[in-house]
Amino acid sequence: MHSLHFTTESSSDGMLARDFALGEVPGVLWSPASGADRAPLVLMGHGGGTHKKHPSMTDRARLLVTECGFHVAVIDAPGHGDRPRTAHDEQEVAALREVQAAGEPEGPIVVRYNAHLAQLAVPEWQATLDALQELPEIGADGPVGYFGIGLGTAIGVPLVAAEPRITAAVFGLHWPDALVEMAKRITVPIEFGLQWDDERIPREASLALFDAFASTEKTLHANAGRHFDLPRFEFDSAARFFARHLGRTVASPA
Amino acid sequence: MHSLHFTTESSSDGMLARDFALGEVPGVLWSPASGADRAPLVLMGHGGGTHKKHPSMTDRARLLVTECGFHVAVIDAPGHGDRPRTAHDEQEVAALREVQAAGEPEGPIVVRYNAHLAQLAVPEWQATLDALQELPEIGADGPVGYFGIGLGTAIGVPLVAAEPRITAAVFGLHWPDALVEMAKRITVPIEFGLQWDDERIPREASLALFDAFASTEKTLHANAGRHFDLPRFEFDSAARFFARHLGRTVASPA
Repeated sequence: MHSLHFTTESSSDGMLARDFALGEVPGVLWSPASGADRAPLVLMGHGGGTHKKHPSMTDRARLLVTECGFHVAVIDAPGHGDRPRTAHDEQEVAALREVQAAGEPEGPIVVRYNAHLAQLAVPEWQATLDALQELPEIGADGPVGYFGIGLGTAIGVPLVAAEPRITAAVFGLHWPDALVEMAKRITVPIEFGLQWDDERIPREASLALFDAFASTEKTLHANAGRHFDLPRFEFDSAARFFARHLGRTVASPA
Repeated sequence: MHSLHFTTESSSDGMLARDFALGEVPGVLWSPASGADRAPLVLMGHGGGTHKKHPSMTDRARLLVTECGFHVAVIDAPGHGDRPRTAHDEQEVAALREVQAAGEPEGPIVVRYNAHLAQLAVPEWQATLDALQELPEIGADGPVGYFGIGLGTAIGVPLVAAEPRITAAVFGLHWPDALVEMAKRITVPIEFGLQWDDERIPREASLALFDAFASTEKTLHANAGRHFDLPRFEFDSAARFFARHLGRTVASPA
């Protein structure tokens, strides 16, 4: 087992960012700059084709760190960010570009490629969580949430199904095909986002995935708009969801 | 045209309650006790079989008044609260009790009775809004929202479709039958709540009503649970929705 080591550290606007590596896996841990108080941890999975420090990640991290006082960790998914692409990654990305250019449905390729990435990523996330819980400011018994949309859901659903330490999760924007059976094993509270006019994922497919979760507390947020129009207020909603379930109060907007 | 006159006034926990009458229609106006500042107005429609001061109304009013600084008005629907029941009301309520006791679908009766109530209630709400806007603390050009679930949606959808002064609305928990055509004329932002395991309203029926709204900003919140299990955090969400659209910030929870 590798142990986590921090590489670089920076701080801005009340948020401390520490890059880390765990074996081959690069990650970042964001924390409140104010101190080393023990606080809940949210693991965030980035979207397909992006990476751990994409603005969609830093924006959400800022909300969770500065308004909720949480720690937030993101790792690069296999073939993403600072990680090498294999020949298989290159093939799948090329196949995806091809169907997109032809205006054909991309679902079948995204589903199979993301399922492959999830198989690799779930044990990486579990090792990362082991290592993060050794930090005194996180601890072995603190609350842990998971937040991932798109590829972050493809990886997060099997992760949360396998991982009893994660007690609340926000998912969304993914095809059900490879995920339904694992979703049926998830019983922790979830919030699930879909786009009502999604041009990539059929509405019925998204509803079927939401339906599959066994959680007694689950909430669907469906917004008018296309795939990439997920409104920003859904991230505020996710922050309140985690505050409710991981045990901190959302600070008032200034 | 009748003008609004206040009958009794009381105040508790930072909230001023003023009962009023407008002709035959009894209502209540809740306001921040702190002063007569001009503030947005939210009209609230109560549920079937309840009334203007049912705890579901006072709880929501408290949230909107004390956390958002809004004025909130509720009037008794025809045949409800302090208003007389006609022979037709008695008949319809008896018919409803009968199908409920027999375990038969109540949808057809609720749909037709609520549509009848809405025909009476929409002009009453419009006259109430006229009168409320004459108060200096509300004013003729301030923002106005509408919030109603169940019967409150049956009355609210035709009201919002007819009333350009209402610029944001929260609806939910109703059959689409009598409402779809009016929902197609609504373009203001809406938030719509349904219960994923509703034993009274079929899931597809609720989704069809949400689908019908022409609003470019519309959000569906579907929660696991039965008809009467709508979670309390949806009322917090509604408060934030109105704060976003009517122009006030939600206060921080203490």
